[in-house]
Amino acid sequence: MVDKALLDQVYRYVDENGESFVDTLRSFCRQPSISSEGVGIREMVGLLKNEMERIGVAATVHETSGNPIVTGVIRGRTDRTLLFYNHYDVQPPYPIEKWDSPPFAAEVRDGRVWARGASDNKGNILSRLKAVESFLKVTGELPITVKFLFDGEEEIGSPSLLPFVQSHAELLQADGCIWEEGAWKDRPDQPLIVLGNKGLLSFALKVRTANVDFHSSYAQIYENACWRLLWAITSMKGPDEKVLIDGFYDNIPPVTEQEEELIAKVPVFDEQERLRHFQMKRFVLGLSGKGLIRRHLTEPSCNVNGLSGGYAGEGVKTSVPCEASGKMDFRLVPNQKPMDIYRKVRRHLDKNGFSDVEMSPPAFASEPSQPPLDSDIVKTIQKASRQFYREEAVLKTRGTGGTPSWVVTNYLHIPMAGTGLGTAIARAHGHNEHVVIGEYLDCIKFMATILNDF
Amino acid sequence: MVDKALLDQVYRYVDENGESFVDTLRSFCRQPSISSEGVGIREMVGLLKNEMERIGVAATVHETSGNPIVTGVIRGRTDRTLLFYNHYDVQPPYPIEKWDSPPFAAEVRDGRVWARGASDNKGNILSRLKAVESFLKVTGELPITVKFLFDGEEEIGSPSLLPFVQSHAELLQADGCIWEEGAWKDRPDQPLIVLGNKGLLSFALKVRTANVDFHSSYAQIYENACWRLLWAITSMKGPDEKVLIDGFYDNIPPVTEQEEELIAKVPVFDEQERLRHFQMKRFVLGLSGKGLIRRHLTEPSCNVNGLSGGYAGEGVKTSVPCEASGKMDFRLVPNQKPMDIYRKVRRHLDKNGFSDVEMSPPAFASEPSQPPLDSDIVKTIQKASRQFYREEAVLKTRGTGGTPSWVVTNYLHIPMAGTGLGTAIARAHGHNEHVVIGEYLDCIKFMATILNDF
Repeated sequence: MVDKALLDQVYRYVDENGESFVDTLRSFCRQPSISSEGVGIREMVGLLKNEMERIGVAATVHETSGNPIVTGVIRGRTDRTLLFYNHYDVQPPYPIEKWDSPPFAAEVRDGRVWARGASDNKGNILSRLKAVESFLKVTGELPITVKFLFDGEEEIGSPSLLPFVQSHAELLQADGCIWEEGAWKDRPDQPLIVLGNKGLLSFALKVRTANVDFHSSYAQIYENACWRLLWAITSMKGPDEKVLIDGFYDNIPPVTEQEEELIAKVPVFDEQERLRHFQMKRFVLGLSGKGLIRRHLTEPSCNVNGLSGGYAGEGVKTSVPCEASGKMDFRLVPNQKPMDIYRKVRRHLDKNGFSDVEMSPPAFASEPSQPPLDSDIVKTIQKASRQFYREEAVLKTRGTGGTPSWVVTNYLHIPMAGTGLGTAIARAHGHNEHVVIGEYLDCIKFMATILNDF
Repeated sequence: MVDKALLDQVYRYVDENGESFVDTLRSFCRQPSISSEGVGIREMVGLLKNEMERIGVAATVHETSGNPIVTGVIRGRTDRTLLFYNHYDVQPPYPIEKWDSPPFAAEVRDGRVWARGASDNKGNILSRLKAVESFLKVTGELPITVKFLFDGEEEIGSPSLLPFVQSHAELLQADGCIWEEGAWKDRPDQPLIVLGNKGLLSFALKVRTANVDFHSSYAQIYENACWRLLWAITSMKGPDEKVLIDGFYDNIPPVTEQEEELIAKVPVFDEQERLRHFQMKRFVLGLSGKGLIRRHLTEPSCNVNGLSGGYAGEGVKTSVPCEASGKMDFRLVPNQKPMDIYRKVRRHLDKNGFSDVEMSPPAFASEPSQPPLDSDIVKTIQKASRQFYREEAVLKTRGTGGTPSWVVTNYLHIPMAGTGLGTAIARAHGHNEHVVIGEYLDCIKFMATILNDF
């Protein structure tokens, strides 16, 4: 372990080279890398590989059936190994007319870099790489071994990640993994740590009762596709929010006492302000305070995200509709397997008289994961937070989104924790995405602190 | 009452003047009179009035806030009075490209007149007027007094009819009323008699839970407008088809023994053929035979005719939708009042926790009606059917559609019965609407028989 004085030297190095570090970020942002459109992927891979090699990281570009995965390794003083997961692809920039400056111009304004990808995820990539660079420049050697795993398809569901991880388990082995995260934290100077992710299952439902819509004077005797769909969907969940699909909650482990204690420490948000801002009447089940946070973190969901049937336009068309469709998604918690839930939904529909309701193949089927709550990597981030930010990090014991961190947790069995650069107002995925330069440089220092402490 | 020989002379007059009667029909059909577009209304009124006066019917054009209502009266040997209701407006002809000849060309082909309005309702108007004309030409006098009520807004819901009838009750008073009907009978040579109509209530439902859609990782804690709508609608009716709105079935009179006997005589249709034709799996509740017909005639309906919410297009957008809407209509049976049902729905929603579900004002709110089953006019049509067609008429004790015959039944208290020209294949409202010339002339004779017998 380097001493405090040395770490201060690293921080100083970051400050002295801030301008150059921002230049690298801008060059990364000026290179579009839109996975959903296949734009700029190869160029971005080249840029990334060059930067890694310039710093001294041995980089490898792995071809997949989709976009390349880039890995890197740099040996340190010990074999103890930290793996960083980030992604070099970005969301599309539309609607472009809403941006105050072009999304790939990476303009500097108001102490910020404005660009698609500035926060999600190029700022985060470079906060890791520049931490390594600064450490090397100051000390000549890393205290630990560092590995990188750069995904090129995160914004389109990371289809190549699982097969890659399964065939490169040895290459990626590590004692801890830092996932990309930070876009949703409330305060720039208080790190957020997020553990694991929810699983996601999504599919469409379709009902067809005839080959034509009928005059609604036949409603008493001809089946109505809208009604069939409505009854089928509401048979799965009522207003009490309990999911009624047989076996849906099977094998879900109870929330441990340890986790309950950790959840109790998650700061509550300003509920009245949130309700006002979004013009909402209440939260689900009228929950508030800790109950709301606990439900968000630990409960699975059964969600309807699309409905259509009959005539929904202006005016009136009193028909008996022959077709109706709906879309559903389920956020899954540990031990719920997406394909198992999919089959349970089918069985539920059949058992309840809805064999006429067709299910599409799953559009998404990804696993939940639950890394250990008190792993070394979690403790290291907490310690580094106190040390560098002089703040206790906020620990969310579960991720609520569908990031593919389950691949690392469930298939590599490496304890993970998500943390990093960005806040809720940095507009990841939105227009005018940006990163505050001061926060970017702080994040580099924070990552250096973690490298030092792990 | 004229004797059998005289009636035969009337029939012969119809045959001898068939060509001229078809010419009149074609001239009526060549005049568009599309109420929904305000096309040709005045011209049609002029044509109709001239024809009435030419025959000897005293015609009056009554201005309304919408299209004129035309009435006529011709005194007969007695004060016993028969009222004919028909409408001179027609449906729009779209899609015009589907017609084999232009919809207002009234081409004669294959023994038919092809035109919008040929069957619905100009052929029916003229079957009445030409019966009167033929009777007058042969006998010099009608056996009874005949009145006419010609609506110009039937295809747009007859908004002017009720106020007109209420302010002209004396003018319209009669001992029986023949409504326009026939478009749905199965055989051209077997009259269909339909009594009364269902009421109709329709409105839209809307739920708004927030001012923006959320990422579906918030599904556990943010309310979902689709779910709210689904639960609200399914709280009104489950798969057993029982309507759960408090008081929905209040005061509905039981089906009388007399009506049960009459329903038992309604011929069943070929269910397997119908299921096959429309690719339906089954009828509602798996019903068949008399049960199916009984349900169609006597039960009210609670129908969903439109659904929308969230993202229903191609691909997936896993959001928590903030808006959802649905459209419903109810077909009502005697003693169900549309505005009363509307208020009961509101109370039901509030009582069941769905005050957040908004109801639009009713788009339709019309009354049900149930004229007497064994009135003189019903008996007269039955007798005339045996006499002229040598067939027992099919008696449907209740109308299943929403024609405004309730205005005559509930506000003039005149016993009514719908019967007339046209079959299910005459394509009223569809493209290639037509009337078979032989059936048109037969209908004139049938109406003359009724005039004679009433």
